[in-house]
Amino acid sequence: MTQQNSVHRLQGLIAATYTPMNRDGSLNLAVVPEMVQHLIRDGVSGIYVCGSTGEGMSLTSDERRQVAQSYVTAVDGRLPVIVQVGHNSLAEAKQLAAHASEIGADIVSATCPSYFKVSDVPTLVDCMADLASAAADLPFYYYHIPILTGSTIQMADFLEHAADRIPNLAGLKYTDTKLFEFQHCLELADRKFDVVWGCDEMLLGAIATGAEAAIGSTYNIAAPVYQHVIDAVAAGDLPRARRWQARSIDMIRTMGRYPFHSAMKAVLAIRGLDFGGCRLPQGRLSQSETETLQRELDAIGFFEWSSPQSSADS
Amino acid sequence: MTQQNSVHRLQGLIAATYTPMNRDGSLNLAVVPEMVQHLIRDGVSGIYVCGSTGEGMSLTSDERRQVAQSYVTAVDGRLPVIVQVGHNSLAEAKQLAAHASEIGADIVSATCPSYFKVSDVPTLVDCMADLASAAADLPFYYYHIPILTGSTIQMADFLEHAADRIPNLAGLKYTDTKLFEFQHCLELADRKFDVVWGCDEMLLGAIATGAEAAIGSTYNIAAPVYQHVIDAVAAGDLPRARRWQARSIDMIRTMGRYPFHSAMKAVLAIRGLDFGGCRLPQGRLSQSETETLQRELDAIGFFEWSSPQSSADS
Amino acid sequence: MTQQNSVHRLQGLIAATYTPMNRDGSLNLAVVPEMVQHLIRDGVSGIYVCGSTGEGMSLTSDERRQVAQSYVTAVDGRLPVIVQVGHNSLAEAKQLAAHASEIGADIVSATCPSYFKVSDVPTLVDCMADLASAAADLPFYYYHIPILTGSTIQMADFLEHAADRIPNLAGLKYTDTKLFEFQHCLELADRKFDVVWGCDEMLLGAIATGAEAAIGSTYNIAAPVYQHVIDAVAAGDLPRARRWQARSIDMIRTMGRYPFHSAMKAVLAIRGLDFGGCRLPQGRLSQSETETLQRELDAIGFFEWSSPQSSADS
Amino acid sequence: MTQQNSVHRLQGLIAATYTPMNRDGSLNLAVVPEMVQHLIRDGVSGIYVCGSTGEGMSLTSDERRQVAQSYVTAVDGRLPVIVQVGHNSLAEAKQLAAHASEIGADIVSATCPSYFKVSDVPTLVDCMADLASAAADLPFYYYHIPILTGSTIQMADFLEHAADRIPNLAGLKYTDTKLFEFQHCLELADRKFDVVWGCDEMLLGAIATGAEAAIGSTYNIAAPVYQHVIDAVAAGDLPRARRWQARSIDMIRTMGRYPFHSAMKAVLAIRGLDFGGCRLPQGRLSQSETETLQRELDAIGFFEWSSPQSSADS
Repeated sequence: MTQQNSVHRLQGLIAATYTPMNRDGSLNLAVVPEMVQHLIRDGVSGIYVCGSTGEGMSLTSDERRQVAQSYVTAVDGRLPVIVQVGHNSLAEAKQLAAHASEIGADIVSATCPSYFKVSDVPTLVDCMADLASAAADLPFYYYHIPILTGSTIQMADFLEHAADRIPNLAGLKYTDTKLFEFQHCLELADRKFDVVWGCDEMLLGAIATGAEAAIGSTYNIAAPVYQHVIDAVAAGDLPRARRWQARSIDMIRTMGRYPFHSAMKAVLAIRGLDFGGCRLPQGRLSQSETETLQRELDAIGFFEWSSPQSSADS
Repeated sequence: MTQQNSVHRLQGLIAATYTPMNRDGSLNLAVVPEMVQHLIRDGVSGIYVCGSTGEGMSLTSDERRQVAQSYVTAVDGRLPVIVQVGHNSLAEAKQLAAHASEIGADIVSATCPSYFKVSDVPTLVDCMADLASAAADLPFYYYHIPILTGSTIQMADFLEHAADRIPNLAGLKYTDTKLFEFQHCLELADRKFDVVWGCDEMLLGAIATGAEAAIGSTYNIAAPVYQHVIDAVAAGDLPRARRWQARSIDMIRTMGRYPFHSAMKAVLAIRGLDFGGCRLPQGRLSQSETETLQRELDAIGFFEWSSPQSSADS
Repeated sequence: MTQQNSVHRLQGLIAATYTPMNRDGSLNLAVVPEMVQHLIRDGVSGIYVCGSTGEGMSLTSDERRQVAQSYVTAVDGRLPVIVQVGHNSLAEAKQLAAHASEIGADIVSATCPSYFKVSDVPTLVDCMADLASAAADLPFYYYHIPILTGSTIQMADFLEHAADRIPNLAGLKYTDTKLFEFQHCLELADRKFDVVWGCDEMLLGAIATGAEAAIGSTYNIAAPVYQHVIDAVAAGDLPRARRWQARSIDMIRTMGRYPFHSAMKAVLAIRGLDFGGCRLPQGRLSQSETETLQRELDAIGFFEWSSPQSSADS
Repeated sequence: MTQQNSVHRLQGLIAATYTPMNRDGSLNLAVVPEMVQHLIRDGVSGIYVCGSTGEGMSLTSDERRQVAQSYVTAVDGRLPVIVQVGHNSLAEAKQLAAHASEIGADIVSATCPSYFKVSDVPTLVDCMADLASAAADLPFYYYHIPILTGSTIQMADFLEHAADRIPNLAGLKYTDTKLFEFQHCLELADRKFDVVWGCDEMLLGAIATGAEAAIGSTYNIAAPVYQHVIDAVAAGDLPRARRWQARSIDMIRTMGRYPFHSAMKAVLAIRGLDFGGCRLPQGRLSQSETETLQRELDAIGFFEWSSPQSSADS
């Protein structure tokens, strides 16, 4: 178990990355290598592909495979690549999981089906056991995001019941705000599971509580901000950690006035990474909204303090 | 418009039909022709394929195509076949819609994406306009089922805004209990839209309020019961209509003690139509549960009064 | 039991009546006798006091007592008066129930507490048994309105478990849209309980399904409209019933563009009954909104067809 | 403003205290002085009376006044006493607020009405401005607890709009898990507002994020545990802080298997403070459940580590 767990521990900031698209919504995978370079430069320690941020659910299965392949190829072993394969159809999800394994992804992760809601522990275990078996050679992280799946099962119950049923279960991508549940899962069974924090705007509280890894969308554009949070906590300087977390909150509130993920893609474009806008059902920003957003972000100093060169004390 | 509408009006009881499966969950399409015979014998006036009942969302896209093809072939023009193509990925949904058109389905219907919630009218119109354009030659029914999609948009608002944007919009499959919203949509714009009732257990109230067609799961096993409701209302005999509706409620409450759709499939099996159980995340019945269910249904007289030979006055 | 039940059967349209207020929100009970005359003239068959419509929860307990007394006195035995005593504090609710009994109210009704949610049947039975015992000489109707109380317990389960625990339990004020649950409760235990319909805008479906009484807010201003619905169903003329129900829906949609109950009070004022506006947290209409509302209602013919002189065929 | 704010800043652990009751549910206020002694001995820095924990909503208004008076008298100026006066009836709430002021309470706090949901900022501001004006001489804290009130308004929006409308607005009792919203409110307008943390089981994260005060139920029985969390954070020893927070989580999970607040009262009884059980609609523990709970708490070491003598390193 020690061996197994040591393999599966994620560390640091993992970008739940975006899927680059052309104006017409088709894939624009040519920009992936450059994105990977950007993320590595910004110090991320892993890439989570085709998650909510990556619009995995809005892509066809063929497109999901292309995106996963593209990121695995571009990363080329420099970072762990996690492929999210959740789907309303577990059969389809299993095909995606098998594909992730074939192309050399490092980890598989998945939501549960969400059209039919999963409302009890045995069913969730059955679903995830079935799914995870399709990539039995890879660590598996259940992706808990109740606000999108509608599945509000207690995660400690899931982990306890899943431990014997899912040999490759590594842990959770925990995307909820219940820090007590997060801590409990993290410490469960002598820290048997890797539980990765998923709520960027409260990373400080999570790190204080014990988080060692986090997966999120804003690490695509502002990993240095969060690295300052982590460093400040490590240095015992909580006031500094709060100042950097406050910047994250300010940035997220600014983008939250727009369709969020399209606003994020607009920021990537400003950074020279043309990711287009989001697909329906998510909204897009008009050109004038994009310009207003840029001015608003500029006004809060975003383009300075989010750069990898920003000083921790700025 | 009169011409257009006359084409798109559904009538009577439309079975939201099941997808037959083997023990291992794989498709067992050989039983489809027999199922179609059963439904025609029971008097249904249409077949709705790959909806919630048919576990469309739990199938792979390839399987959805096979199921649709199988029903279209077996029906062979004797009834309208409606193919449900809703998917979290609109791109995938469009492929399914195009396929439905190619194989000769009569009507396309779809939920909106539900992982990312659709919470405003313009977005819903954009989504459905995009989707419906992929089968522009077929009438399109938006499938409103807020309890599963999480999209609680007012349907009258949707219809009013969609009218000019979706040329092939025929109307709604309305699966909610708000009879006033149903009536309002039905009468909207001089009855421009066909609004089909989707809540079997309150069909009586819907018919009284003006429903002319209904799509539902229990019409697969008890269409004669509901035909008695319809006939009694037509005959002005509401007490008789209530007695038959009460049987429907009793039947549904009995099956509702089990995973509902697997209980329905168990009843089909008792009727000689081997549909297997449901796929995850829906539960299955054990052998002993199946036997208990059969006894319970027998105790309420289900197997007599649900037969096409049952007398209206029984 | 037959005796008991015959006493407790409500019939026809029962106005969930309003609480008249001055501009400053204080009670203006002088208008109550005139309101009662209006309601009797409009043909209502009972008055429900201090319900959601009457802002019972927004009044002090002293005010609730005054309002109840005022309506009981003004009605003077001509109609049954039902006093709603639900309160977050069951102790306070019991005092209100005892008061209702003392002043000669005919029936007591109550929601369950709603700050702390009631989420299981035994607790709901315990709460209502405790409450109903404070007016043991009066019939008691549980007021089921899950959208406001957050208590979504199955009502058939409640009735079955409460039957032996609450000797004066008469039935339910059922304010939800699940017509199948309504029908099931109505027919339960050989029609042991009186289940009164609470959703005005789908009265037609409820009557067809077996409703014999309805309690609602719009019976305060448009009882004749609903009487036409009832008469048309009785005459077997469902198309006519639908036309009248459609007027109800149109009227409710028009008022629903404003804070609903204040819009209702504005209509009472137009009718010469000065009920003021609602208390916080409900909103009020500005003078110009009131005028616009009046024009909108005029435009749909409301002031003609809602009068007691309106012809059934108009 | 500096002056004003300095008056209103709460510090440390504030017990949302319980209301002592006899077996029959009547008040048993004789135990209050002893409870206050216990809380002071345990190091709490304030007492919050008639909140959710104190079953304020389940008491009559007369009882709420008695409880408030009893705590104010027993505390006798040694600690700030905060009286929670939220009520569905704002008129009743205002009477309770005025009473709190008259008897010498230090602070007034209130939820919004919750039967009629408050769903927009202007209405919430109107409600709280009206309420807070009844105790204009005391600081006022809005009690944000969306899981019970159903009011999910963004708190930063409320604070920004309320600042000019409610002169005595001090801040919030923030009972939700969104640490980013908490931090944003705390830092808003140059730290104009006092925002008090309300989720005991994630205190560590809140302190790290900047919380200086917390109001909660488990500070009644385990303030020393949380003081160790606070001290450890202050000492820069996060691993130690986590160990103590983990004990809190363990304790809360153990009690959460029972009706929570009655379990808390059972622990008080074990400690020699006879607070009885809770009133309906909250459940009670049977004698055997109480004994099992005691054994379970003993098994996790609760009675040792929750004592004021427990060593920080134990």
